[in-house]
Amino acid sequence: MAKKKLNIGLMGCGFMGRTHSNAYNKVNKFFDLEYEPVLKAACARPEDESKLIPFAENWGWQSTETDWRKMVERDDIDVIDIVAPNNTHHDIAIAAAKNGKIVLSEKPLAMNTAEAVEMAEAVEKAGVANMVWFNYRRVPAITLAKQMIDEGRLGRIFHYRAKYLQDWTISANVPQGGQTLWRLDAAVAGSGVTGDLLAHSIDTAVWLIGGMDSVTAMTETFIKERELQDQPGVRKPVLIDDACAFLARFKNGALATFESTRYARGRKNQNCFEINGEKGSIFFDLEDAHQLQYYNHEDDAHTVGWRTILVTDSSHPYMKQWWVPGCVIGYEHTFINALADFLKGLETGKPIVPTFRDGIETQAICDAVLKSAKTGVWEKVEG
Amino acid sequence: MAKKKLNIGLMGCGFMGRTHSNAYNKVNKFFDLEYEPVLKAACARPEDESKLIPFAENWGWQSTETDWRKMVERDDIDVIDIVAPNNTHHDIAIAAAKNGKIVLSEKPLAMNTAEAVEMAEAVEKAGVANMVWFNYRRVPAITLAKQMIDEGRLGRIFHYRAKYLQDWTISANVPQGGQTLWRLDAAVAGSGVTGDLLAHSIDTAVWLIGGMDSVTAMTETFIKERELQDQPGVRKPVLIDDACAFLARFKNGALATFESTRYARGRKNQNCFEINGEKGSIFFDLEDAHQLQYYNHEDDAHTVGWRTILVTDSSHPYMKQWWVPGCVIGYEHTFINALADFLKGLETGKPIVPTFRDGIETQAICDAVLKSAKTGVWEKVEG
Amino acid sequence: MAKKKLNIGLMGCGFMGRTHSNAYNKVNKFFDLEYEPVLKAACARPEDESKLIPFAENWGWQSTETDWRKMVERDDIDVIDIVAPNNTHHDIAIAAAKNGKIVLSEKPLAMNTAEAVEMAEAVEKAGVANMVWFNYRRVPAITLAKQMIDEGRLGRIFHYRAKYLQDWTISANVPQGGQTLWRLDAAVAGSGVTGDLLAHSIDTAVWLIGGMDSVTAMTETFIKERELQDQPGVRKPVLIDDACAFLARFKNGALATFESTRYARGRKNQNCFEINGEKGSIFFDLEDAHQLQYYNHEDDAHTVGWRTILVTDSSHPYMKQWWVPGCVIGYEHTFINALADFLKGLETGKPIVPTFRDGIETQAICDAVLKSAKTGVWEKVEG
Amino acid sequence: MAKKKLNIGLMGCGFMGRTHSNAYNKVNKFFDLEYEPVLKAACARPEDESKLIPFAENWGWQSTETDWRKMVERDDIDVIDIVAPNNTHHDIAIAAAKNGKIVLSEKPLAMNTAEAVEMAEAVEKAGVANMVWFNYRRVPAITLAKQMIDEGRLGRIFHYRAKYLQDWTISANVPQGGQTLWRLDAAVAGSGVTGDLLAHSIDTAVWLIGGMDSVTAMTETFIKERELQDQPGVRKPVLIDDACAFLARFKNGALATFESTRYARGRKNQNCFEINGEKGSIFFDLEDAHQLQYYNHEDDAHTVGWRTILVTDSSHPYMKQWWVPGCVIGYEHTFINALADFLKGLETGKPIVPTFRDGIETQAICDAVLKSAKTGVWEKVEG
Repeated sequence: MAKKKLNIGLMGCGFMGRTHSNAYNKVNKFFDLEYEPVLKAACARPEDESKLIPFAENWGWQSTETDWRKMVERDDIDVIDIVAPNNTHHDIAIAAAKNGKIVLSEKPLAMNTAEAVEMAEAVEKAGVANMVWFNYRRVPAITLAKQMIDEGRLGRIFHYRAKYLQDWTISANVPQGGQTLWRLDAAVAGSGVTGDLLAHSIDTAVWLIGGMDSVTAMTETFIKERELQDQPGVRKPVLIDDACAFLARFKNGALATFESTRYARGRKNQNCFEINGEKGSIFFDLEDAHQLQYYNHEDDAHTVGWRTILVTDSSHPYMKQWWVPGCVIGYEHTFINALADFLKGLETGKPIVPTFRDGIETQAICDAVLKSAKTGVWEKVEG
Repeated sequence: MAKKKLNIGLMGCGFMGRTHSNAYNKVNKFFDLEYEPVLKAACARPEDESKLIPFAENWGWQSTETDWRKMVERDDIDVIDIVAPNNTHHDIAIAAAKNGKIVLSEKPLAMNTAEAVEMAEAVEKAGVANMVWFNYRRVPAITLAKQMIDEGRLGRIFHYRAKYLQDWTISANVPQGGQTLWRLDAAVAGSGVTGDLLAHSIDTAVWLIGGMDSVTAMTETFIKERELQDQPGVRKPVLIDDACAFLARFKNGALATFESTRYARGRKNQNCFEINGEKGSIFFDLEDAHQLQYYNHEDDAHTVGWRTILVTDSSHPYMKQWWVPGCVIGYEHTFINALADFLKGLETGKPIVPTFRDGIETQAICDAVLKSAKTGVWEKVEG
Repeated sequence: MAKKKLNIGLMGCGFMGRTHSNAYNKVNKFFDLEYEPVLKAACARPEDESKLIPFAENWGWQSTETDWRKMVERDDIDVIDIVAPNNTHHDIAIAAAKNGKIVLSEKPLAMNTAEAVEMAEAVEKAGVANMVWFNYRRVPAITLAKQMIDEGRLGRIFHYRAKYLQDWTISANVPQGGQTLWRLDAAVAGSGVTGDLLAHSIDTAVWLIGGMDSVTAMTETFIKERELQDQPGVRKPVLIDDACAFLARFKNGALATFESTRYARGRKNQNCFEINGEKGSIFFDLEDAHQLQYYNHEDDAHTVGWRTILVTDSSHPYMKQWWVPGCVIGYEHTFINALADFLKGLETGKPIVPTFRDGIETQAICDAVLKSAKTGVWEKVEG
Repeated sequence: MAKKKLNIGLMGCGFMGRTHSNAYNKVNKFFDLEYEPVLKAACARPEDESKLIPFAENWGWQSTETDWRKMVERDDIDVIDIVAPNNTHHDIAIAAAKNGKIVLSEKPLAMNTAEAVEMAEAVEKAGVANMVWFNYRRVPAITLAKQMIDEGRLGRIFHYRAKYLQDWTISANVPQGGQTLWRLDAAVAGSGVTGDLLAHSIDTAVWLIGGMDSVTAMTETFIKERELQDQPGVRKPVLIDDACAFLARFKNGALATFESTRYARGRKNQNCFEINGEKGSIFFDLEDAHQLQYYNHEDDAHTVGWRTILVTDSSHPYMKQWWVPGCVIGYEHTFINALADFLKGLETGKPIVPTFRDGIETQAICDAVLKSAKTGVWEKVEG
């Protein structure tokens, strides 16, 4: 049976452009879906055109644009997928929604809660499907954690602790800003590790155990000045948070600690969390993404222990679409799994999460965290 | 610059057909290569046509065949890639070579050494490029192990120990033979774990530390009779080896132990090896394929310890083609990496390993192992 | 050569009484020391005499007392070693010092900073040797961490994160107070996990990387009421902290997170910490006390990885006194190592740490933590 | 109630003399037993007297002897405990038995099966209690493995694989023979790793899953000549096996691999084994002796995984005698646990294993292994 074509317009051609392009190419080869994405157009700023052209050619994008306003108005586009820097999400998404496009956005959804609310209202008003690309929800081990919690395996939750540690900005010689280092430029990224890394940790936490009540936080910028990537020799103050840690209380009474940094020597992408419940505990580490650790208090006392679940079995989320037990999938598959879910959602009409509306909460928590880091007191999460 | 097209003819449409099709689709998107594979034709037996058609459609194979002899004679095919059961490799490969085709073959290369020798002679006589798909050489961590040995980091080798453990045939209810379980049918597979799993372990070992002198082995078939997949209700003796273990002496004086089984409860795809040298040791386990363990005796005495190398850095083999540090690749990428190497080899004219000639040694070792399991004495590795 | 006898008076006969008695019995058999402890007298409250008598007999204490005031006045006692509940430390220590006794105290040193200061002043005024039993400093792997930091292997410190997790009070049926559960009685213990567990984490942290500037904290009591152990059927509010987490800034600019709980299902005695410095990182977990994890950024880029140092070698702290490489020591040895250090300190006249003076800082940090948990703002560490 | 005194005569004052002396000192402090060992006399060769005297003083041995024949005849000795080199076990044990002494012997029991049989017959004829010190049976995790197998948790056993790896003789500068290196002298030790290390692995295996039918083996001596420790400058051929590996078939149909070496760089005391059964698997590694890995096939499919059992709970063998959950014991405790079992056996009259009779099987297997290493064929295990 012929697939329903879904014409995609990609906004951006950087690292996330690669992961999404790969997903559009592969999703139908592994998942049985009614919809089939068509790589219609890719868009970048005029000054990035020399990068855009070979990008589009490599991935099979049928056309290119250098004006995002044109892109959102093209009749032959069904979906606007935003993989451009954070400060562009708001305007593009709202314009796309107004033009009746389905809107997908990389995370964090926006520069702040106010923007996120406007974006959610725009897609809801337009009645268009939408999703924030919190891809790590689709790591099979994390989806499995969600399933196990929903099965009641943990019982009352006492503790949540999350870390997201990297080490790539320790050297003072790393510049800031520009095409590949905009994550170090507060004007473009909005914040540092809070929006880039903790947003993932927060989204996962809220998905797994529910909403947050209040937080108290600290942030630090270890390297105070860096050269501008686009202007060699020119040094400017670094305005992002290099590191952020916060304490939190969830609405369900659980206590939490969250921490993120790019100064943890030896940690490359250690996005990990542990949940302690009355009946069991769970631990996950993205650096061993194929595993989920699980402690089941109901096991016999003399044989109980932390289990290492090798999440490669056909009984595990997403895995029967891929290879065979013992054969792992990798980073890129989180995007493909997410896309498959989104397309299946279009097909079935069932809610696709996280929507822009869901994205507001993560944004509100990030805002509370950044505010607390300044005020030094506990801040309520708004919304 | 336009790519040189390389027309591929795929022989088979099963599990390995998927991994190869995926590789042909992706290789140029991640590697910068002069050649570009074109998915020209896929071939299966007439009785598998109902499976072949959707397979070809899904992966983009432009045409299909149900007669392999026609396939090897098609003028529009440059490469014959054999992913059909083991007992078909010999005839297809030789016919393909005679027709001047590049020949790629899944492992094990052949049913026995005699076949392998004829195949190697055929491709050499025809002067066509050829490769055996021992994909695990292209796990970045294994390639890194090879690099580290070549750098002299281990010194004189004392010990090699390899295991390849699975657990999927423990139930007596698993049938044998047929389209998906031919690996349990000795007439089709040649042997059980020896050709299927130990062939990988042996190929890796010989690549890493050199040739083998002699072996002594034991094999066992735990479940003596199984139903035929194609004839429900009909039970036949199981003629393959369910498990095999052997001791070996390498030509360089190293001692080795090898073991494989499909009856190791809890081991899904534990292809692991350890090498102990005078200056250091290395350990690898495919169930944690993104890691390589390394012990460097030259570290300071009070800080020496087994290192867990997270093989995701741009300094590691293949990884700069993929994502960023901390982001893993998976099972399927071993095929893509292998294909990229093969294509680069065509481009540069530099030798592509393992060739069919290289594949003979693994076959000779498997033969010696199976022979010793019968004779109960040490057998020399021929060739 | 005859040893110098050192007559010990032990105050208490509970769990810590066992660990210390064992240490006094064993220390001279494994360490070459001038001093030799003599188990002179053990003391407990009159109501615990039925427990004291067999305790003394088992461990070889030559006499018993049930009045601590008599004990501190006995002429045949050189050392008063306090292993009684926290609310007794202050009075006993000061009285012992006034009588010219060497004073050793279990941790936490006191109920609060004010008490600790008085105790430190008392031993200093009396000019008697003194030590707080923060035994985990003498886990060989932790001592090794200290040595490696002193060798400059970590460089500038960015992060410290400590957890001390247990799970033994999750059941609402665990009573509070009484002889074996006084740690759940705030009047006797002073606080919950803060004084019992975090005191260890804090002492280790300050020893390893220096003093703390300020903290912000939260505490929680998950089970609000428990039966009294001594009065079955009588339920009272639980006044201790079941869990405590805090953020901290060290004086050297490092950021830190600390957390402790007795509600982390599956964590039995997980006292762990990680330190991230510019040049390297260290991780330790008491549940695998024989190991220290170390990441050395100066290793070659393609072979760098977290090392698991097996801390059983003669080049490691304390280990040449014990067995041979690969043979681990256990929990009790931390007390023996500490005692050996203390006796060697008496012998050499070199400072023995942590003294009561050193103990004040940990106490001050605990006080700041408990205060912040009430005020909700950052609190400076006094002193 | 007064304990029954049991007068011990220790034959030897080396490394094992230390472990046993420590056990005699500590056993009654931790176990509730009717018998109490008295350290009556320690014995060594006349040429070792200068080592014997301080040894006896340190450990509290009341007297010393330098003639073992006198020792076995002393009326005030109840137990002869042999910790001298392997070539002395036979004569001492038989003489001790003839004098009506209880006889304990370090492992391996004898130089060969013939000796072991004579020793077993001697103690049985004399009707005296006896035990071989295979201390690793009393690692709590190994005892737990035995318990779990007896509970039927593994089902039919398919595979056993054992390794015992060390790395302390890699340097060609390590001398052989003499007081501390007699393990490298075949005339004194009988064999190399086979009797020293594999004897442990074999004893454990036979205890856990039953008797062995036949074996095929290889041995190697990597360093062909070493200086004599007692005669600096004099080099002699090395006659022990530096490494040994063998395949085995158990009587119950299980297949096994065993390997030992002192040339595995980075492995200090890696005595490990894995057992695969139909219903579950178990893995143990002495370098992480506080853990037992367990895979239970009966867990729910999506949550099954290898469990790391932290063997420190009061529900685990021996552990309620020691400290509290999460607090590990170490190497020395295996001897104390074994001694406690032996004394409890005397008290209850229940069989104490392994007896000398049990020790014969391990000896017979070692003999078959060494024979096969010479003949190159499978050898039946005699007896």
